[in-house]
Amino acid sequence: MKAVRVHDYGKRPTVDEVPEPGITGPLDVLVRVGAAGLCRTDLHIVEGQWAEKSGVGLPYTIGHENAGWVEAVGSAVTNVTAGDAVILHPLVTCGLCRPCRSGDDVHCENSAFPGIDTDGGMAELLLTTARSCVRLRPGLEPADVAALADAGLTAYHAVRKAVPLLYPGTTCLVIGAGGLGHIGIQCLLAMTATTVVVADPNPAARELATTLGAHRVVASTDELDEPAHVVLDFVGEQGAEARGLAMTRRAGSYFVIGYGGRVDIPTIDLISTERNVVGNLVGSYNDLDELMILAAQGRVRLHTRRYPLAAVNEAMDDLEAGRLQGRGILVP
Amino acid sequence: MKAVRVHDYGKRPTVDEVPEPGITGPLDVLVRVGAAGLCRTDLHIVEGQWAEKSGVGLPYTIGHENAGWVEAVGSAVTNVTAGDAVILHPLVTCGLCRPCRSGDDVHCENSAFPGIDTDGGMAELLLTTARSCVRLRPGLEPADVAALADAGLTAYHAVRKAVPLLYPGTTCLVIGAGGLGHIGIQCLLAMTATTVVVADPNPAARELATTLGAHRVVASTDELDEPAHVVLDFVGEQGAEARGLAMTRRAGSYFVIGYGGRVDIPTIDLISTERNVVGNLVGSYNDLDELMILAAQGRVRLHTRRYPLAAVNEAMDDLEAGRLQGRGILVP
Amino acid sequence: MKAVRVHDYGKRPTVDEVPEPGITGPLDVLVRVGAAGLCRTDLHIVEGQWAEKSGVGLPYTIGHENAGWVEAVGSAVTNVTAGDAVILHPLVTCGLCRPCRSGDDVHCENSAFPGIDTDGGMAELLLTTARSCVRLRPGLEPADVAALADAGLTAYHAVRKAVPLLYPGTTCLVIGAGGLGHIGIQCLLAMTATTVVVADPNPAARELATTLGAHRVVASTDELDEPAHVVLDFVGEQGAEARGLAMTRRAGSYFVIGYGGRVDIPTIDLISTERNVVGNLVGSYNDLDELMILAAQGRVRLHTRRYPLAAVNEAMDDLEAGRLQGRGILVP
Amino acid sequence: MKAVRVHDYGKRPTVDEVPEPGITGPLDVLVRVGAAGLCRTDLHIVEGQWAEKSGVGLPYTIGHENAGWVEAVGSAVTNVTAGDAVILHPLVTCGLCRPCRSGDDVHCENSAFPGIDTDGGMAELLLTTARSCVRLRPGLEPADVAALADAGLTAYHAVRKAVPLLYPGTTCLVIGAGGLGHIGIQCLLAMTATTVVVADPNPAARELATTLGAHRVVASTDELDEPAHVVLDFVGEQGAEARGLAMTRRAGSYFVIGYGGRVDIPTIDLISTERNVVGNLVGSYNDLDELMILAAQGRVRLHTRRYPLAAVNEAMDDLEAGRLQGRGILVP
Repeated sequence: MKAVRVHDYGKRPTVDEVPEPGITGPLDVLVRVGAAGLCRTDLHIVEGQWAEKSGVGLPYTIGHENAGWVEAVGSAVTNVTAGDAVILHPLVTCGLCRPCRSGDDVHCENSAFPGIDTDGGMAELLLTTARSCVRLRPGLEPADVAALADAGLTAYHAVRKAVPLLYPGTTCLVIGAGGLGHIGIQCLLAMTATTVVVADPNPAARELATTLGAHRVVASTDELDEPAHVVLDFVGEQGAEARGLAMTRRAGSYFVIGYGGRVDIPTIDLISTERNVVGNLVGSYNDLDELMILAAQGRVRLHTRRYPLAAVNEAMDDLEAGRLQGRGILVP
Repeated sequence: MKAVRVHDYGKRPTVDEVPEPGITGPLDVLVRVGAAGLCRTDLHIVEGQWAEKSGVGLPYTIGHENAGWVEAVGSAVTNVTAGDAVILHPLVTCGLCRPCRSGDDVHCENSAFPGIDTDGGMAELLLTTARSCVRLRPGLEPADVAALADAGLTAYHAVRKAVPLLYPGTTCLVIGAGGLGHIGIQCLLAMTATTVVVADPNPAARELATTLGAHRVVASTDELDEPAHVVLDFVGEQGAEARGLAMTRRAGSYFVIGYGGRVDIPTIDLISTERNVVGNLVGSYNDLDELMILAAQGRVRLHTRRYPLAAVNEAMDDLEAGRLQGRGILVP
Repeated sequence: MKAVRVHDYGKRPTVDEVPEPGITGPLDVLVRVGAAGLCRTDLHIVEGQWAEKSGVGLPYTIGHENAGWVEAVGSAVTNVTAGDAVILHPLVTCGLCRPCRSGDDVHCENSAFPGIDTDGGMAELLLTTARSCVRLRPGLEPADVAALADAGLTAYHAVRKAVPLLYPGTTCLVIGAGGLGHIGIQCLLAMTATTVVVADPNPAARELATTLGAHRVVASTDELDEPAHVVLDFVGEQGAEARGLAMTRRAGSYFVIGYGGRVDIPTIDLISTERNVVGNLVGSYNDLDELMILAAQGRVRLHTRRYPLAAVNEAMDDLEAGRLQGRGILVP
Repeated sequence: MKAVRVHDYGKRPTVDEVPEPGITGPLDVLVRVGAAGLCRTDLHIVEGQWAEKSGVGLPYTIGHENAGWVEAVGSAVTNVTAGDAVILHPLVTCGLCRPCRSGDDVHCENSAFPGIDTDGGMAELLLTTARSCVRLRPGLEPADVAALADAGLTAYHAVRKAVPLLYPGTTCLVIGAGGLGHIGIQCLLAMTATTVVVADPNPAARELATTLGAHRVVASTDELDEPAHVVLDFVGEQGAEARGLAMTRRAGSYFVIGYGGRVDIPTIDLISTERNVVGNLVGSYNDLDELMILAAQGRVRLHTRRYPLAAVNEAMDDLEAGRLQGRGILVP
């Protein structure tokens, strides 16, 4: 089969002919990939930024936002059968540790991350397990939702955690209306009655935020007078961290979602206002299942551009050069 | 009446003869002070560190941890009557804003802070309002509990917020077993089944922690192998911040209570482990009421040393020189 | 001034000329009534059903859903001034007991209920206190919102409590789309992404539910195949209780809001499915404030029909005879 | 091997020689039984009360409170190995449905219940799966804890749910200090600072409650003046339901744990006081893991009496005749 594989860090991946993976374990699921999202993290992997952290051996297949159709299942799989359309939770989890049994499978004590530390989904087939498969509701196609598997799921998860804080009369400031932020805005509008304020220096992103229904859209937090009850920072670097904290009101919460910068604040400023700084990772399996419901209901939509698998480097060029509006999707 | 008043920043307060305050508003309560706790903040006030922040005019009376007996009440006061033994919540709050009406009166939009920005309790009489008075259960004397009004209340509040995180099998690391920390330890043991681990470089503090029932007591967090589900940092400076964060496990929470230092952490470290940083201010009125119940039940005890009001500077000397074990209490 | 007063149980009220009330206490607020909602409870009061429970002396003025403009305030009132448009929380509360200080002022230990156990708002002026006044946002008129003060507030409160249970993918069954239910439906759609299913035998109510955006509307719960995660029972009598419980799924919650009937269920049926039965009273002051925000945003609208104060009995006739679509509003 | 099997409803079980079960599925775990608790439910099974509900074919092996040592494991089992001492969660769950993935495995959509609807643990060997095995901490023996697997777990689960309601100053009324209730009392004392009041007509049960540290112990709820914030009803029949509800204060919660009777209450009484009725089933796997921690810490102890497996009918006689103080344990 064809697969997008990284051979050397610093060099672009190639589309190789590789052996097809097969079922070996009782909970294995083999998926015919329908679409694999292209993510900025893929560029970072190719550059070698993840080499040490993942410890993966080269060559290997990238692609960590995957959806498709079940091709075959192991002997103990009961939740999906061949032919089912599925989106895959980005982690392969054990199901037996306390986090897995508490709805926090993202903190599974024995997880793998296909596309990061093992073969991923930019290929014709992907081997995963029963625990990662979310069946798609009728009307959802793998290519429509693949990029929600990681980027969208991260945005959903942060909003889901913030919901109890966002009663009517509150304000939620969204910093960054890009790939994650524009999903976050849709989730906020679907799940709360909070006033959604969006800050993004990019005019196209602001226009998208307005179209999606944000109540107020500004280029910079400097235009805002009032701090917010909740700040969702989808940027997390280049000064967004400091501005985000400054825009968090007394007893409010600053959610860190984007990364690259630092949270740096005197302890007296945290205690005298009793503010919280909340770290956010990708969502759980149940979060992904809920996000798919919002997608099936048409409340969350993703802007995508499709490329054939063989055009992976063209897609990477477009992403790198900022020519890619919405998310790039590789279709094998 | 006699009152401990600050005349010039940088100079010790004097015990002056001043006019007695009287009831003027319908919700006013005049309290005959039974005891006023002496706090490190009082030293900082005298040094002028709070001059700009409080904006208080000199001279004025300090003392923000107060208990005593109701002497007189305004026309609209219904919750206390003359003769009642009371401990006073440190803030005078409005009762009408949203925080006051949500159990978050600490974030009252119109509060005053006697002893900080208006006349406090190191005096024979203190003027406060009905909303600040917690009646003492039989068996509790003002001098036994006065120092719980601020220091103890802060520790209680942080523990109260952490309780839902501290199910059996979790570990709570307490950094600092001093004035606040030793109350926090007692609250943890009373309200949860968590394993309480205490770190303090001071041998006397460690001995106290052990006596109180802490499950493990160490001089430094370096002695610990495992990060904790919750870290209660009663120090918040001089490196405790970094060690506290480092000792917070995945999906865990670092509670900042002490202050003076900085929280400084890369956003990637917050998101990749999904940890929370939780600011903590003093507790609410209801928190104080609950803490008084623990005190009445004998589950929280404070070590104190009494001084007459006239010996305020001797007490301050002892506190400054580290000669004061437990909390100093001024008894008018 | 004119006031609608009950003189004898079993006889309709009369519109009397009575002395104007005046400010006597420091927290008193005198309100010029802009509108008073007419409620089925008013019919029950007139019939004498509340005589024993309220213990009110006759004659007295009814009307417990009130909005208007502040006419005068007591010496200690800081949150409203003369001329402010306000809606009144139905209870006059003390502000000093634990429930008042916890956001549960509905459970105030020292409350009064104007229109039930003391003079109410079907009059030109109403005497209340600062604690009951919610200032209206610009654009909201007293006559538009008065009936939200009790009926709407009860519906909002129940939905607000249910929000954490109503994540995407859940179903909420609303039994009864009348005066309370149609507000509940709007609140659910504004604050959650749950699927809203409505059951009402009245075709006009079903049409209203559909217009408001309910996802599925049926005449009877018999038409439904699947039990719901949450059932909001705005009827609570005549068999709705049993059907509501039967339509509550495992680990789900049945919210009792309407009343008149009985919850009667074997304990084994509660434990084997681990279901909850949740009682619901009117909402808190903060709930009313939040509901006014939804109203100001246009997310919650009330259908009303106005009558002059002198036409109170005509309005009661219409209500009794089922001729009154929406809520009747008396405008002095 | 030997197994206690029911052949005909209405007749006592016999100890039969049956073939040993063996590993067939990849997640199977074979356990050498160390102890099986005897429960009143076993008497009911023998009487035929569960025949229709369980639909189990006769003959089969009873015993649903099991602990022992792992004998063999399937190919995909990673959490236990041969020789591990384990206690078994009473349900065999799928791990793939939403409840299993949310920490609510008790509501698993595909569960089996060994000892009820499939062969149980009153035998030398029991076949279960990896998902049911909780490894015992050093110091805990199967025979010490087996009876916590169901009865104890149910009590723990109810208390765990009640913890957020039981802040200092609250009262928790425990109705019934028998097999479940005496575990509930220990859990309350370990995990909260609430005031524990126990009502039981049995003098031995009252003595046990007092020994365990209950703050007040009465023969009947009639002796109590004040309703409680939380009522844990471990009886749930013969009038306890009505007394329990009557003893639940405004805004309080009545937890139904025991069963056999009915909850029967006018809807007006639920709404006018805004009380909750909370159904409670057995606890989750994580609950059992937490309870084992309390057991290992010595905070929860079970009174037991051991019988050899062959003496099952003697044990049943003792249980039926009320001669069995504490829980009966069958040791193969």
